[in-house]
Amino acid sequence: MRQIILSFGMSLDGYIARPGGGLDFLPSDKDSMKLMSEFFASIDTLIMGRKTLEESIRMSGGSYKSPVTMPTYVFSKTLPAGKHDGYEIVKQSPAALVRNLRQKPGKDIFHMGGGELGRTFLKADLIDQLFVGIVPVLLGAGIPAFPGGFPQREFELIENRAFSKGGVALRYRRVRSEKPTVSKTKKAR
Amino acid sequence: MRQIILSFGMSLDGYIARPGGGLDFLPSDKDSMKLMSEFFASIDTLIMGRKTLEESIRMSGGSYKSPVTMPTYVFSKTLPAGKHDGYEIVKQSPAALVRNLRQKPGKDIFHMGGGELGRTFLKADLIDQLFVGIVPVLLGAGIPAFPGGFPQREFELIENRAFSKGGVALRYRRVRSEKPTVSKTKKAR
Repeated sequence: MRQIILSFGMSLDGYIARPGGGLDFLPSDKDSMKLMSEFFASIDTLIMGRKTLEESIRMSGGSYKSPVTMPTYVFSKTLPAGKHDGYEIVKQSPAALVRNLRQKPGKDIFHMGGGELGRTFLKADLIDQLFVGIVPVLLGAGIPAFPGGFPQREFELIENRAFSKGGVALRYRRVRSEKPTVSKTKKAR
Repeated sequence: MRQIILSFGMSLDGYIARPGGGLDFLPSDKDSMKLMSEFFASIDTLIMGRKTLEESIRMSGGSYKSPVTMPTYVFSKTLPAGKHDGYEIVKQSPAALVRNLRQKPGKDIFHMGGGELGRTFLKADLIDQLFVGIVPVLLGAGIPAFPGGFPQREFELIENRAFSKGGVALRYRRVRSEKPTVSKTKKAR
């Protein structure tokens, strides 16, 4: 089944961007680009929230330019539904879109950026993998990668790879059916 | 020089404890214990905040029991200065205590727990190393490992080690004198 992969680079203190949206702390050297291009080769669909779209548009100077051309779905509470050059604003529920996409054949699906849409997807348990690049800096302020407000979600580590200068790329797979273990009974939920 | 090492286990979403202080999500298997005991062999002094002290006291049933007996300094704004069984409440500034400790010979110094005291230490740039165990779970809520409110701090990765089931222990060294690089000039501060 096509996996929904929530992926981003974040600071060690868990920010995907500076308070104003700035991403300058993310490395852009050859090694980071290699990591990204390998990842892009494994996916064929993009999902993002309006803020990530707007930041992408801002960064590319006023029009949306996908790193690779592929179906791109943008969730927004404020913008009307409709197709645009390179992306589509969708109003259906995340669960409905994901169900729809999973019925079609294809590669994995990249949920770009964490933040609020990430929380919504985690709440609905729609994230199958996390692929997080941890950059060796503490920013002290910024936009949180994982804003709280979803139930506990267990994962298992499936990749641990160094990249760039001191970056660590960790890939996790969602573990949905936990075997009852001693640690399970200890959980204070 | 003796290093001040800020160390803790945290969830993938950056929490050192559940909202009520619970630590049950941290692994306590043989492999995790091995990691901890190796770390404890490298240090001979403990620094913590009042909340970490109180949580330790609560967890050991009403009295403070250090994992290993060693000088233990507890910062508190509310408790009076003074020596207790196993620890000392200090009222001096973090910088003064650290200066003092660094003048004496000894092993490295363990700053236990992140949270508010961690922020104070990062603000004063007193942390020389981070040693963070990342546990493969998203909690969705809790006490943040790195509450914001300190200036940007660069680190370099010096260790990346798997532990327990899907845990990743990352050790970083503070980089205080950055060489001017292209990425430096890009910083949008």
